[in-house]
Amino acid sequence: MREPIDFYFDFSSPYGYMAAQKIDALAAQYDRTVDWRPMLLGVVFKQTGMAPLTQIPIKGDYSRRDFERSARFHGVPFRMPPVFPIASQAPSRIVLWAKAQDPALAAKATLALYRAYFVDGLDISNPDVAADVAAGAGVDRAGARAAVDDPAIKDALKREVDGAISRGVFGSPFVFVDGEPFWGLDRFDQIDRWLSCGGF
Amino acid sequence: MREPIDFYFDFSSPYGYMAAQKIDALAAQYDRTVDWRPMLLGVVFKQTGMAPLTQIPIKGDYSRRDFERSARFHGVPFRMPPVFPIASQAPSRIVLWAKAQDPALAAKATLALYRAYFVDGLDISNPDVAADVAAGAGVDRAGARAAVDDPAIKDALKREVDGAISRGVFGSPFVFVDGEPFWGLDRFDQIDRWLSCGGF
Repeated sequence: MREPIDFYFDFSSPYGYMAAQKIDALAAQYDRTVDWRPMLLGVVFKQTGMAPLTQIPIKGDYSRRDFERSARFHGVPFRMPPVFPIASQAPSRIVLWAKAQDPALAAKATLALYRAYFVDGLDISNPDVAADVAAGAGVDRAGARAAVDDPAIKDALKREVDGAISRGVFGSPFVFVDGEPFWGLDRFDQIDRWLSCGGF
Repeated sequence: MREPIDFYFDFSSPYGYMAAQKIDALAAQYDRTVDWRPMLLGVVFKQTGMAPLTQIPIKGDYSRRDFERSARFHGVPFRMPPVFPIASQAPSRIVLWAKAQDPALAAKATLALYRAYFVDGLDISNPDVAADVAAGAGVDRAGARAAVDDPAIKDALKREVDGAISRGVFGSPFVFVDGEPFWGLDRFDQIDRWLSCGGF
């Protein structure tokens, strides 16, 4: 078993959601595991002067169309959430907290949280909603809810985000394979080839 | 033979260059032709508040790496030009002028101009350089050089750019298949499927 693949994502990112449906299977093909790393795109946008896709003139309309079409293309259920984008601190803290105890359970909770937002339209920025969804995936509800307000977990997430930015992460999803950076679900074909031949 | 595929591109766009190597073959698979439509990303950026990729903090470094890697992935020769980005009025006007007389020759000139910039490192924003390169592809040199300063051609390009923006074009390459918009070389897999089944 070689190094895990780093999978950075923001819970408010449609392409992050779609990529999350695929990264485990892609990694498994090459006997790799996935390190699921929630981050906060809002903090990155402040540093790069970027903005959420849907808020950019002209590009915004296209993006909404492309979310729906890309979901159909990849065979992933998707419904544009009624509230978008959302602050993703609450679900990110829950996942970070769960990961420290059980990485596999944290991955399962991540998929459940993403699905709650991008299929069921639930507002997972609400700590109670996020804790409920995580509990549905098997995470201890009281622990999850407490993690959202835990100063140690808040600091841990802040360190994760700072670390991501210092590695050059500026979007979601963002993947590292043996140090090589790949931005976007669009690069999964390149990730596949990179994993198969160790670089090209 | 069905409607041509609209292929919008900016001569300063690395992904536009890479896509230009592939669009004719993709269209031909489905008995389509390509309408090669030069546009000016600088004008679009003013309207959207966007900036050239390489000038965005953090994203810029990744982009340069991704240009090189994507070229290797797609098997396209590529060398980051010494001057980047460039104003693309001169080659765009030459191509528009040539297209009015001979669309196939204009396509050939487009590929020659792109190659001159992204392989040979020539500054095709210079009207004399652009005219020389177009002449090498079989375009009348004097006519090409005159087109760069021709008010009618300038107006024609301005109308093309305005028309592109009003259709929602905000990047390069940008493709329309029967009215459906696709942004980026990354969407060639979706274009392929769209052409094969008339939408999904």
